[in-house]
Amino acid sequence: MPIELNTVVEDTKENDMDIDFTSCFNKCHNPLDWSEDIVPAEPNYFTAPFNRSRENIFIINNKDTFFTNAQRSRMVYEVLLRTKYEPARDKIGIDKLVSNGAYTAHFPLHDGKFTSEHSILTNGAANDRHLLYETWARPGVWYKHQPLDLIRNYFGEKVGIYFAWLGFYTGMLIPASLVGLAVFIYGIATLWENIPSEDICDKSGAGNITMCPLCDKRCYYWKLSTSCLYSRATYLFDNPSTVFFAAFMALWATVFLEFWKRKQAEIEYDWDVADYEFEEHVRPEFEAKVTRTKVNPVTKIEEPYLPFYSKGCRRFTSLLVICFMICLVLAALLGVIVYRIVIVAVFYAQPYRYIQENAKLATTATAACINLIIIMLLNKIYYQVALALTNLERPRTDTEFENSFTIKMFCFQFVNFYATIFYIAFFKGSFYEYPGSDWNYIHLAEEKYMIIQCDPAGCLIELCIQLAIVMVGKQAFNNFKEIMIPKIKNWCSARGAKKAEKQEDNIYTRWERDHDLTASPPMGLFEEYLEMVIQYGFVTIFVAAFPLAPLFALINNIIEIRLDAFKFVCEWRRPPAMKAQDIGIWFGILQGITFIAVITNAFIIAYTSDFIPKMVYRFSPNDGHQDLTGYMRWTLSKFDVNDFENSSRPDPNHDSARSPEFNNTIVTECSYRDFRNPPGIDPKYEHTLTYWYIFAARLAFVIVFEHAIFLLTWVIGYMIPDIPADVHLMMLRENYLAKEAIYTTEKDK
Amino acid sequence: MPIELNTVVEDTKENDMDIDFTSCFNKCHNPLDWSEDIVPAEPNYFTAPFNRSRENIFIINNKDTFFTNAQRSRMVYEVLLRTKYEPARDKIGIDKLVSNGAYTAHFPLHDGKFTSEHSILTNGAANDRHLLYETWARPGVWYKHQPLDLIRNYFGEKVGIYFAWLGFYTGMLIPASLVGLAVFIYGIATLWENIPSEDICDKSGAGNITMCPLCDKRCYYWKLSTSCLYSRATYLFDNPSTVFFAAFMALWATVFLEFWKRKQAEIEYDWDVADYEFEEHVRPEFEAKVTRTKVNPVTKIEEPYLPFYSKGCRRFTSLLVICFMICLVLAALLGVIVYRIVIVAVFYAQPYRYIQENAKLATTATAACINLIIIMLLNKIYYQVALALTNLERPRTDTEFENSFTIKMFCFQFVNFYATIFYIAFFKGSFYEYPGSDWNYIHLAEEKYMIIQCDPAGCLIELCIQLAIVMVGKQAFNNFKEIMIPKIKNWCSARGAKKAEKQEDNIYTRWERDHDLTASPPMGLFEEYLEMVIQYGFVTIFVAAFPLAPLFALINNIIEIRLDAFKFVCEWRRPPAMKAQDIGIWFGILQGITFIAVITNAFIIAYTSDFIPKMVYRFSPNDGHQDLTGYMRWTLSKFDVNDFENSSRPDPNHDSARSPEFNNTIVTECSYRDFRNPPGIDPKYEHTLTYWYIFAARLAFVIVFEHAIFLLTWVIGYMIPDIPADVHLMMLRENYLAKEAIYTTEKDK
Repeated sequence: MPIELNTVVEDTKENDMDIDFTSCFNKCHNPLDWSEDIVPAEPNYFTAPFNRSRENIFIINNKDTFFTNAQRSRMVYEVLLRTKYEPARDKIGIDKLVSNGAYTAHFPLHDGKFTSEHSILTNGAANDRHLLYETWARPGVWYKHQPLDLIRNYFGEKVGIYFAWLGFYTGMLIPASLVGLAVFIYGIATLWENIPSEDICDKSGAGNITMCPLCDKRCYYWKLSTSCLYSRATYLFDNPSTVFFAAFMALWATVFLEFWKRKQAEIEYDWDVADYEFEEHVRPEFEAKVTRTKVNPVTKIEEPYLPFYSKGCRRFTSLLVICFMICLVLAALLGVIVYRIVIVAVFYAQPYRYIQENAKLATTATAACINLIIIMLLNKIYYQVALALTNLERPRTDTEFENSFTIKMFCFQFVNFYATIFYIAFFKGSFYEYPGSDWNYIHLAEEKYMIIQCDPAGCLIELCIQLAIVMVGKQAFNNFKEIMIPKIKNWCSARGAKKAEKQEDNIYTRWERDHDLTASPPMGLFEEYLEMVIQYGFVTIFVAAFPLAPLFALINNIIEIRLDAFKFVCEWRRPPAMKAQDIGIWFGILQGITFIAVITNAFIIAYTSDFIPKMVYRFSPNDGHQDLTGYMRWTLSKFDVNDFENSSRPDPNHDSARSPEFNNTIVTECSYRDFRNPPGIDPKYEHTLTYWYIFAARLAFVIVFEHAIFLLTWVIGYMIPDIPADVHLMMLRENYLAKEAIYTTEKDK
Repeated sequence: MPIELNTVVEDTKENDMDIDFTSCFNKCHNPLDWSEDIVPAEPNYFTAPFNRSRENIFIINNKDTFFTNAQRSRMVYEVLLRTKYEPARDKIGIDKLVSNGAYTAHFPLHDGKFTSEHSILTNGAANDRHLLYETWARPGVWYKHQPLDLIRNYFGEKVGIYFAWLGFYTGMLIPASLVGLAVFIYGIATLWENIPSEDICDKSGAGNITMCPLCDKRCYYWKLSTSCLYSRATYLFDNPSTVFFAAFMALWATVFLEFWKRKQAEIEYDWDVADYEFEEHVRPEFEAKVTRTKVNPVTKIEEPYLPFYSKGCRRFTSLLVICFMICLVLAALLGVIVYRIVIVAVFYAQPYRYIQENAKLATTATAACINLIIIMLLNKIYYQVALALTNLERPRTDTEFENSFTIKMFCFQFVNFYATIFYIAFFKGSFYEYPGSDWNYIHLAEEKYMIIQCDPAGCLIELCIQLAIVMVGKQAFNNFKEIMIPKIKNWCSARGAKKAEKQEDNIYTRWERDHDLTASPPMGLFEEYLEMVIQYGFVTIFVAAFPLAPLFALINNIIEIRLDAFKFVCEWRRPPAMKAQDIGIWFGILQGITFIAVITNAFIIAYTSDFIPKMVYRFSPNDGHQDLTGYMRWTLSKFDVNDFENSSRPDPNHDSARSPEFNNTIVTECSYRDFRNPPGIDPKYEHTLTYWYIFAARLAFVIVFEHAIFLLTWVIGYMIPDIPADVHLMMLRENYLAKEAIYTTEKDK
């Protein structure tokens, strides 16, 4: 527990011309900051871990406030965790007493009420909790910087770092969402100038092309103009600016991570948690369960210890189980896909017209329900499995425990959330060949079922809709849940107590009040991080398909910060204060997501969007075009309806055949989106040269895009030092003073 | 200058079962190691920088040997560097005195003669120099580990780290060269089973195909069988095992860097140079030239200081000059290419038959000479430019100076050495279209000249030859130079002195002897590193084209180590001992090369080698083949000789037309290597579908190869910790003791 040692405030202040401008700027009052009257600034000390036998060397102004609120609660907690309540070897700690029912709960008390009759501006804060509420958890202060030092002193470093990160991330989302919005507005502004979608909407031009049916037998031919709305909507997200935006977001993610590293270094230094992991205590569970001991070679103190082979076996087992669980999720996804393919055919085969007409809708609805149920079920199971596996691994410290649990949960949640989206982006529709091809069918129980294609406007619009629903829906639902559930719970439990107070003249005590609050979940921050990191995935991985994602994320996060703050300050029992050096393994996960994002964006632009075919159409060296006139026709291939098998050919008596569009004309040839030979040319329906040309262009784009982005990423990472210059200087100075101290000691011996 | 503080030998020895086996193994005598009788082991101390006022806290057994040889010479050197010889401000240091001619040289003396009349085994070493010679610099000990601690104590850490790195690199080359040899042997073993080259050599089969002429007008058609030898040679380096080898070498390079990081961490700890850069002194030149001073915020001592904007301007200027110089090299390369294109045509146009016949050879020879002269000239100029630019930048410390100079020289040398090879690998022949196309010509002064193609067997064989010549030739030449030049120089200068000794009964003193040795170059290690790093480039970047590169590098390095050692011990004046923390910026350069190597190898396999077309021919989903029979014909396209312009059509009265192969038959159609439409099909001579199909496959291969390698690289980097576990433990222990010491100091205040 590092504590002030020797004041070195102002010690390393630069007497340098270069930074004069900055310091000048800093002196101006920033409306986003709190004035020093309300939130006092923390002085900067040279620090060292506290040791009672050396009490005299520390600066102690007031023994009651020398340790912060959080430090005191942490010390009590540590003592309670290690106290034996019975002589037996494993009868240790308050947690066991709670679990066997001797106590109902244990928690540090809050500082008092978070409301006060007097305004904070006139009377000052009644207590730390009140101060936190007024400066942090109130919705009215949504635009202000968070008082991070206060949070740290009240809740501990771990909660402090979470909010520091969340605030930083939200701030970084502002430029991203502005650019995203600009891209979207560009899409709207140029919508009517987009020749391909205007072509499609023109019923007398390309819109009049007869397209091949989208399903087997029961679907009829259709006119391209039907796809008008979808094609316009697609353009909003699939225009040249999207490519720019994908590149921008890849770089944004790199800059975000690099600057967070700096911010984190600053926090590490300010909060003296830089070498936290070295001095972290062994978990009580580890001490209780591991019988073998060994002298710790650093401190020369005997410590429990898990041999290497045992650790290896435990980790390997846990890896196998995780792989199995992930396969289970993928199998479930596959199951749902097959279910859709089969059930849509079954619905169509029903004799009732009503069912036939709504076959697609019914399929989608039931499939979504099944999917949701499976995901939720697996989620519940997996949470327990991950907990059990992490315990099996016997992590030595709390940090190790959390990291191990986090990586397990993240892998699972990642697959769980993104599998469907990846499927839509890269696989849906790719297996579809030309109409009537045998490859379009899967064979199940001697029946054949046609696989599902994307809408003729491309898979991108489906991807976009899916993303919007999942992301916005999930966030809205989560926020609603986070607001309402604790409110209801607290209201229920407090009502009883208040009634009792009124009736029996009892005083409603602090500990009763706090006990009536919702218990803070054991891994409360874990859920918050997970939610944010999954959101970061939406913001970066699929940003090419949904440029508004950063904006939605920004709005959500502004609400989220205050909601979380309110939860911590007002609705939860105060959690035991914990220490943490950084955001832990989440940083590695964010790096991984950023990496995946570059690759995914490259492939979405090259493969899912229409960017490359359009480029080829316009700028092909042999036959380029001035604009995209005729592009729509160019992307279609012809199919001779006589090549349909009888079981697949559309019913000529279909209702649609009598519609004004077709007017009972006999269709001999239909079109579909692909680059294949027309019926007359051998080899029939094989991919044309243009197809392979575009394919090569797509791959070349991936190579160029990735290399360019990774090169730029590397340059950015190289140019931005990991530790801000002033913090680095302070560290060097601390190091220098420590060395000087060694001499003095040795000399005096 | 860190020196022993408190003995903590054996302090962190593990009492752990896990490592018992290793320590057992270590006890056995390794024939590659020196026995402790000859080279005593260095004890391990807890160290701290020496300070005279605290002399009593250091363990001083013998005041004469407390500082090592290298440390003493370094101290003297530092004093001499800073001594004022006249009151004026810039009259500082021995270097100035040497440069204005007051002294002829300054250097530390060697320890004595490196030879002794008595065997080292019976009488021990006469002095440190003798010990170094016997255990390190003798060719007879080429297979032994280097006595690194001895080298460090005699020459300082900088030289020590260079040899540690060189030894480590050489050791790592052993597995690489074994695998490379295996790949080459596989090529030889399966040479006769290679269907395409056997096809070419079969004069009645594919060998009988008439090929289009390789140059304009004066070249005649030729039979494919002519290319038989080249095609067989190509197969040796272009067979399926090459792909495996390229992947292997990419991973090898990663493992090499990761393990070097560990080794370096170990050396840093052992030699106490971990925080060297923090305590490094300001360069005397910097002190002399920079007038502005500032208090160093770490030590609170006034120091000269260069403002940020001045630093920025200086760096930017230097960057511009470097870019300009690199452009100059590229321009020279382009000039040589154009020269070849033009001059070959000029030679052919000569009326003398002798010149005509040797046109190609003469062109190559003169072009190579011009190329060489330009490179050497630019090299000389650039060395001076780089030195001037580095001085302009005013680096603060020696490390900064070296890094800045190194990066400049490396960039230039890299372009200088590899530009031609990159040109052959990726550009030569790519601009050639089908015979008779207008794109094959460059227009200069109203004449048109045909561009140069690769040999019909592909560019790979040319790349391979070029690599072999450059690499092996350069190494042989360098080694020869390194052996002979100092020998001759020393012999010349010593002869005079010896004669004088005999005649006048003078004693040939140590300082005279040492003065007669060659002066060690001011940046002696720089040249050595550069040579090795350029070699590392050959071993990794183009390994797909020349799998024997690691073997040649290994042989060279085994010689190189002893040659360098001999140079340092016997032929050079002893250089002033310098400190260094690591191999400096070279590590970053090695990382960069490794990165480039992965990309280059991917492109060489995909683009320059025949791997992808062969794979497509065999495994194409639509029309795969059982083996490569017919592959050769498949890769050729037909050309109608009537489509030649008159100025290009081969002369039907050419000598070759009367050769038995052609026998005056009239050629109407010839073949060339490409996938283009035959004359009959429209669009004439355009790329076929197969071409684009293969092109897409090439790009797909690049994407898959790169992603796979980078993923594996990342996994390897993640799995191998940067600091070996035992070193990490020692560091933690040292840290722990330091913290304990702080308390004691503060307590006693």
